[in-house]
This record gives sequence, C-alpha cells and structure tokens, in this order.
Amino acid sequence: MILTVTLNTALDVTYRVPELRPHTTHRVTEVTERPGGKGLNVARVLAALGHDTVVTGFVGGATGAVLRQLLAGAATPGDGTGATPGDSPEAPRGTITDALVPITGTTRRTIGVVDAASGDTTQLNEPGPIVATPEWSTFMESYGRLLREASAVALCGSLPPGVPVGTYAQLIREAHAAGVPTLLDTSGEPLRRGIAARPHLVKPNADELAGLTGSTDPLRAARDARRRGARAVAASLGPDGMVAVTAHGAWRATPPRRLTGNPTGAGDAAVAGLLSGLVEGAPWPDRLARAVALSAAAVRAPVAGEFDRTVYDEVLARVEVTENPAAA
Amino acid sequence: MILTVTLNTALDVTYRVPELRPHTTHRVTEVTERPGGKGLNVARVLAALGHDTVVTGFVGGATGAVLRQLLAGAATPGDGTGATPGDSPEAPRGTITDALVPITGTTRRTIGVVDAASGDTTQLNEPGPIVATPEWSTFMESYGRLLREASAVALCGSLPPGVPVGTYAQLIREAHAAGVPTLLDTSGEPLRRGIAARPHLVKPNADELAGLTGSTDPLRAARDARRRGARAVAASLGPDGMVAVTAHGAWRATPPRRLTGNPTGAGDAAVAGLLSGLVEGAPWPDRLARAVALSAAAVRAPVAGEFDRTVYDEVLARVEVTENPAAA
Repeated sequence: MILTVTLNTALDVTYRVPELRPHTTHRVTEVTERPGGKGLNVARVLAALGHDTVVTGFVGGATGAVLRQLLAGAATPGDGTGATPGDSPEAPRGTITDALVPITGTTRRTIGVVDAASGDTTQLNEPGPIVATPEWSTFMESYGRLLREASAVALCGSLPPGVPVGTYAQLIREAHAAGVPTLLDTSGEPLRRGIAARPHLVKPNADELAGLTGSTDPLRAARDARRRGARAVAASLGPDGMVAVTAHGAWRATPPRRLTGNPTGAGDAAVAGLLSGLVEGAPWPDRLARAVALSAAAVRAPVAGEFDRTVYDEVLARVEVTENPAAA
Repeated sequence: MILTVTLNTALDVTYRVPELRPHTTHRVTEVTERPGGKGLNVARVLAALGHDTVVTGFVGGATGAVLRQLLAGAATPGDGTGATPGDSPEAPRGTITDALVPITGTTRRTIGVVDAASGDTTQLNEPGPIVATPEWSTFMESYGRLLREASAVALCGSLPPGVPVGTYAQLIREAHAAGVPTLLDTSGEPLRRGIAARPHLVKPNADELAGLTGSTDPLRAARDARRRGARAVAASLGPDGMVAVTAHGAWRATPPRRLTGNPTGAGDAAVAGLLSGLVEGAPWPDRLARAVALSAAAVRAPVAGEFDRTVYDEVLARVEVTENPAAA
C-alpha cells in the first residue's frame, strides 16, 4: 500500500454565493463538504488509479468526525456521495484505509467562498488544532508500524501549530530506516528542513521552488534543490506542465494544450501520478507524463481529489516529454 | 417558564481576519462558536435575568450536536465557557432547558468574518435544513406539551426552507388555545401572516415595520400593525430606543445616550426585556425601559445573547419614557 501523511487535515467547505461583498450579509446558495488536506486528496486520486492507500495524520472534534464519515464514503464506490469522474468500470478502484490518529483538539475547517458569476474563490483557512505530546507519540508509533507495510510514503501539506518545523525531516529519516521511499510536498521552512533529510522526491511548484532557492528558473532551481538534499525534484509549472531533475537525467513534460478550470487539487493529482509511477517502477518520462495528465484532468474536475478520466486518457496520450531541456 | 421557539437555529461561527479581501486566501486568526438563532439568544438573556426558559425548534447533524453542547454549557454558570457579563452574584441565574427536536437534516452555520482593523463584519448564512413532515409533527406535539407549562412564548427568527410561510400563525393560534401570551419577532411574509393570527406582541425594527405597512414613521406604522392584528407593537429604533403602541396607550423610550458597539443580538435582548416584563406583569413604561436598557447593554457586549450588566443598570435608571409621543 501507499501511505499518505496529512498532519493538518481539514474539513473543506465550499460556499456558493452570487457575489462576495465585504461587510454585507450573504445567503449561501449551496454548501458542499469534503475531506480535505493534501494527503487525503492524493489518496483519493491513487484509489481511483487502483492503488490501495492508507491515510494518516490527526483528526478530532465534530469536524473531524464529519471528515472521517466523508472519507469512509469516498473509500467506497457507488455510495451515494456523488459521481467520481475518476471512476470507471474498466479501472478497478483501490481502497482508502483511515489510520488517522484521534486528538482532543478539533480538526480545522477551510471555507472556500465561490462567486457564482466570476467563479473566483475567497479562501478562509482556520488554524489547525494543537497536537498534545502524547498524541504525537501515538502518531509516531502508528507511523512506524504503517511504514512496515508501505511501498512509498507521501508527506503532504502544512504543519499544524505547535508541531516542530523539523518534523518532516524526522518522518523522512524514519522512512529511510524502514527502507521506504519518500515524497515530500510542502513549502517554506518545513520544505527547507525536510529536503536536508534527503527525501527521494520533492514536488514543489515554481513559486515554492523559487522561495527555497532564490532562483526563478525552475530547472536551475530544481538542480539547486537537489544540491540541498532532494534526490529528485519534480516541479509543477501550472498549465505549462512539469520539469524533473533526478540522478539519471532531466525532463520537461508539456501538455498538448493549456487547460483552464479549478486549479485546487491539481498539485495533489500530480503527486498521486508520481507516486503511482514510483511504486510501479515506471521510467521517469512516463511518471512525469502521468503526473501532467492527472494534473490537467484534475483542473477539469469540480473538486480537489477528483479528476476527469476522459481528459486524463486524452492528455496522457499526447503529453510531450523532452530530455535535457534547456533552461529558460 | 418562558418558552422560546427557534425553527431555524444555527451554529454561529465568528472568524477574525486582518482584512477580508475577495478572491484571496486568508489565515483565520481566531475562531469562536456560539449557539445561534434569535430564540436561543433571547433565552440566554432571560436566564441571566433569572427566568427559567425552555428552548425549542429543530436541531440536527454534526453542527447541531455542537450547538447542543454549547447550549448545555451556556445553561450552567461557571462552566468555563467564558464570563457572561450579564451574570453577577446578586442576580440568581435562570435555567435553560433544551427541548429542541432532533431532525435528520443538519443545522446550518452562520459565519461572521470580522475585519480586525475596522471591526466590520461580513456575514455568510447557510440555508437551513429541510424539515421532514414527521419531524414537524413531533415538534407540534412537543410544542403543545410545552405550552401547558409556559407563562409566555416567543416565536423568533426566520423559517427554515420548506416550512410553510403561515407557520407562525399556526403556532400563535395553538398558544391562544392554551391561554399563553405570544411574542412574534420575525420579518417579511412570516411576520405579515403571523400578525393576522393576533399575537399579543410583535417586536419589529423600524425597517421591518416599514416593509410590513409601507409607512416609515414608526408610530404610524405601529398603529397600522395593530389594525392588521397585533394586539401590541414594540418597535426598536436602533440607538434611538423604542416605541410601543398597545390597547392602553403609546410610549416612546429613549436611552440617555446613543451607544455604539456590536448591534447583533440587541433586538434579542429587547425581546427578553419585553418578555420578562410581560410575565412579571410590569407596567408598559417599565417593560419598554427594560427592553431599551437591555438592548443598549447588549450593544456593549461582544456576542449576541450577552449583555453588560453595568451598562444595563446605568441605562435602566436613566431611560426617558414619554407617554403619547408625537409622530415624527
């Protein structure tokens, strides 16, 4: 199984309003709730690709209970939680196992307020709950046990308040000791500190990579990130595709056309593509093509953690991968 | 006991952000949750005034469970849910009994986003849950039983979707049959239809009254509302106080000074003042003075359902009540 770690899970709430106008009162016309946090989105895409996944991290309070309920629904196809565009009769669906560690604190909500007219989103993100020391110990024990069964582990998203900034480095070292390859998808100081622990792969976007290295050229920045410790770097360039720099070479993957839509979750779909390629032992050009196609297909799906399989198949067949691309 | 009915209860969530800017991402710095809905606020003020109250209406889902938990906390003084400014050792506190009827639907949330700099609030109100026919029957049975013990009933706030617009008229007729005096605090068509059932008292604000009668002069509009069926009308004029028109006369109550602060819940505090005066058989000028003083004291408290007792005592001693005031 593939293990995904989401230390700062969230209940993602989406509100639709005619138009958000500050300091006025709005009737919300539509409310949707989803299990949120990058690792949970990654797991849903992996399951749609046929991979069994286990999700861990922290969960608590009333919002945490709703999150678990929704996650249990997402784990079972045809459960009435709505069509999953990534689902199809030809693709056997993987399972999602909930190994989240219960905490006394309450799982945060994120509220995305979508203007019906423009489609623009205003995001309100609650701070995460405080994780108590014994809860952290419980997580570490559970993480150690789960690693024994894992073919890969993805460490995803921000750290909740109070969790030490070097936490991802610690989780990467544990995975090294267990012989499990690691993918790190975070930003800022947790990314900087995590990279120093030599993860197998990091997946920053161009902005995160520039923040880390100071270079706005993604290829140059990716090479710099490798010097800082990452064994491989796959950087997303938004609608322009991705670049990867590894010990064996460098590649750029470009989709056949720029797709517009909902960018939320595109990065998580790319992580799922990279992970599935990793555990299947696919060559790098194929991993990158898959990540770019999934990312494009996620942009065409209404919510994070889903993708449009028709777009996926179409883009996958037409992604252009070039070896040793020139720097911008 | 005093019965308050809140058909469209809510979990009131308040977010503090530095400044709300549409189509950007915000980190929420502070999250607070309160049991919400007008009748629940009224009950909390009544309890602080020493009156035992019973709250009914509908509650459901995860948000409903949180609401009930918070309500249980609010019913017990010194429970760690924070200081209640309306509380003091001299004032024995009344009880709040939860007689809310469970439903399959989920209680709505309201999100108030407060700009830290300006203090201005942007409000996002979810639609209420659908109430199923058997749930409505359960409520009506419970309402009939509760009326037998009630010295007065307050019908507060909006109707959830699917509940017939004539519902308040039905609840008023039931109360008449049980010999229980009724106070109606709603707006729009439910107010218009409710008034026709001859409630003992309606408490619109000047805007609601103008919407009902077409007259922007509150005294004239209040007289019109009486002709439409209300036995008495107490209209709030915001920081300018209140006017009342009853079978026995007309009065205007003016606070000693205009108080600024948080207007949310000021109307609910006024309802609590009017109800407490009604069940104590206080003369109309005293009821009106109490309502105006509570309203002003609620404006000085941070959240709906609370009031500042020092402000209350001070304003109550200095409210000016004039009989047969001239129309504006």
